[in-house]
Amino acid sequence: MQEIHVHAPATVANVVCGFDCLGFALAEPFDEMTVRRTDQPGVRIINRDNFNLPTEPERNVAGVAAAAMLKKARADFGIEIGITKHIMPGSGIGSSAASSAGALVAVNRLLEDRISKLELVDFAMDGEELASGSRHADNVAPCIFGGFTLVRSTDPLDIVQLEFPPLWATIIHPQIEIKTAEARAMLPKDVPLKTAVRQWGNVGALVAGLAKGDYGLIASALEDIIVEPVRKSLIPDFDEVKSSSLEADALGGGISGSGPSIFMLSSNPNTAARVEKAMHIVYSQNGIKFNTYISEINYEGVRVLTGNE
Amino acid sequence: MQEIHVHAPATVANVVCGFDCLGFALAEPFDEMTVRRTDQPGVRIINRDNFNLPTEPERNVAGVAAAAMLKKARADFGIEIGITKHIMPGSGIGSSAASSAGALVAVNRLLEDRISKLELVDFAMDGEELASGSRHADNVAPCIFGGFTLVRSTDPLDIVQLEFPPLWATIIHPQIEIKTAEARAMLPKDVPLKTAVRQWGNVGALVAGLAKGDYGLIASALEDIIVEPVRKSLIPDFDEVKSSSLEADALGGGISGSGPSIFMLSSNPNTAARVEKAMHIVYSQNGIKFNTYISEINYEGVRVLTGNE
Repeated sequence: MQEIHVHAPATVANVVCGFDCLGFALAEPFDEMTVRRTDQPGVRIINRDNFNLPTEPERNVAGVAAAAMLKKARADFGIEIGITKHIMPGSGIGSSAASSAGALVAVNRLLEDRISKLELVDFAMDGEELASGSRHADNVAPCIFGGFTLVRSTDPLDIVQLEFPPLWATIIHPQIEIKTAEARAMLPKDVPLKTAVRQWGNVGALVAGLAKGDYGLIASALEDIIVEPVRKSLIPDFDEVKSSSLEADALGGGISGSGPSIFMLSSNPNTAARVEKAMHIVYSQNGIKFNTYISEINYEGVRVLTGNE
Repeated sequence: MQEIHVHAPATVANVVCGFDCLGFALAEPFDEMTVRRTDQPGVRIINRDNFNLPTEPERNVAGVAAAAMLKKARADFGIEIGITKHIMPGSGIGSSAASSAGALVAVNRLLEDRISKLELVDFAMDGEELASGSRHADNVAPCIFGGFTLVRSTDPLDIVQLEFPPLWATIIHPQIEIKTAEARAMLPKDVPLKTAVRQWGNVGALVAGLAKGDYGLIASALEDIIVEPVRKSLIPDFDEVKSSSLEADALGGGISGSGPSIFMLSSNPNTAARVEKAMHIVYSQNGIKFNTYISEINYEGVRVLTGNE
């Protein structure tokens, strides 16, 4: 018998101009998962939290991803996955990605790490498809690789690990529900070429700013003229949170994933704390329940803590 | 009296996925220009080549740009610009950009370099507007800054100097005329969001590949699914040039500016020479006159050679 314990972190995808391609990992919150090798084949899920997520493996993102990988690897064993989620489902900070990525990294350790990280992302996209109906990689890639990642292409799958300077994220999670279908229906089907050019100029500038550690350039490149303008109406007081955060010296930020969380990036932890305070002031006035988090960008992704024989 | 002699290099704009934002400077070909301070105010143009470009300053790109700058700087002198062009007008490798950028850098030296490079790009865009009807910066930016540049935004003007590894460009200039209006009319007005996302994934990956010096990543990011597919029909044997170049180990490439030149990038001068040979073989069969050039990417931009009192 072997048991692997992992921490699977929250992630931010759709990083402002980098819709559907840029994402980064947080140090916290993270889910705790334990994957235990069993002689009996198949996948069994045990939820150790109060979110009432499905325990049938084929309806659980961790189960779907792990089962696909075990099958592909022709494993001669089964697994039991114990999950203690701390990342609230539906928060927009990669809750489903953490579940599938965490399970896969743990199962891979049971398989003596013979599956590449890129292949793990591919399996994790099966979980994302179950969760949201789309095989996207911009949460699972940073969750598995750590740091700041760019999905150059999903077909063929190509993930780029970006260089970046120290960065802190401040997140506010308003406890409202955004229906994925509704958020998706808001997206324009087509965009004017001129608008697309400005957006890819910003993506290029953001990647350059990250590589150079040029905070000023990062700040000016954090501009989204395509998705944010249409989706921000889903999030109460989005404009106020953003403007107060910028006044508190955040570099910039926007909608995390498809919301409702909002993230702001800062160059140091003191500013990130000031940004959190500014967010609190805005949300203390609207009566909506919320959580906030401050986290440095996590270089590591899913962390394997123990693997006992 | 003071006289400044400069070399103003050719440039490649619309670098594959980086339509309207990415460009780089070549070491050659370059235009030779001499700017002489005169007591008489105003701008006088002397062409020392056989291209018969206009000598009226208001119809000459160098004249327009230089006059705008002299006026803004409230210069109490005039200038005489002598131009020996080696970059053929209409070749798609930044002939007009070299004229205006070269004149501006020389005039700035007469003004003791008190104008910033960013402002020079802004003045040079006046020249580009005269030449092509659009105030674009993706040729003048690398011509003035040197190296590989990204135009993050033209309003406000924001130029990013990219980090990049040693790169050689092989250029073939088929001596056919492409009407700018025709090339522009081919551009789609709108693009599907999904297509735009793939394009900005490639822009981000290309910038990351350049920053890391990762030639494999540069090669995979050199993909344009928006402009090249519609414009390549303007250039005889485009697909054959591209596929032969890739077989000769070019990293990738595409249409230079709006054509008719085609450029291919290589990681070393030997490959660039093999690519040139491959281009020659394709064009030796179609009966069209052409020139080829091989050049390392030029770190310097416009070079000031002499400034005699």
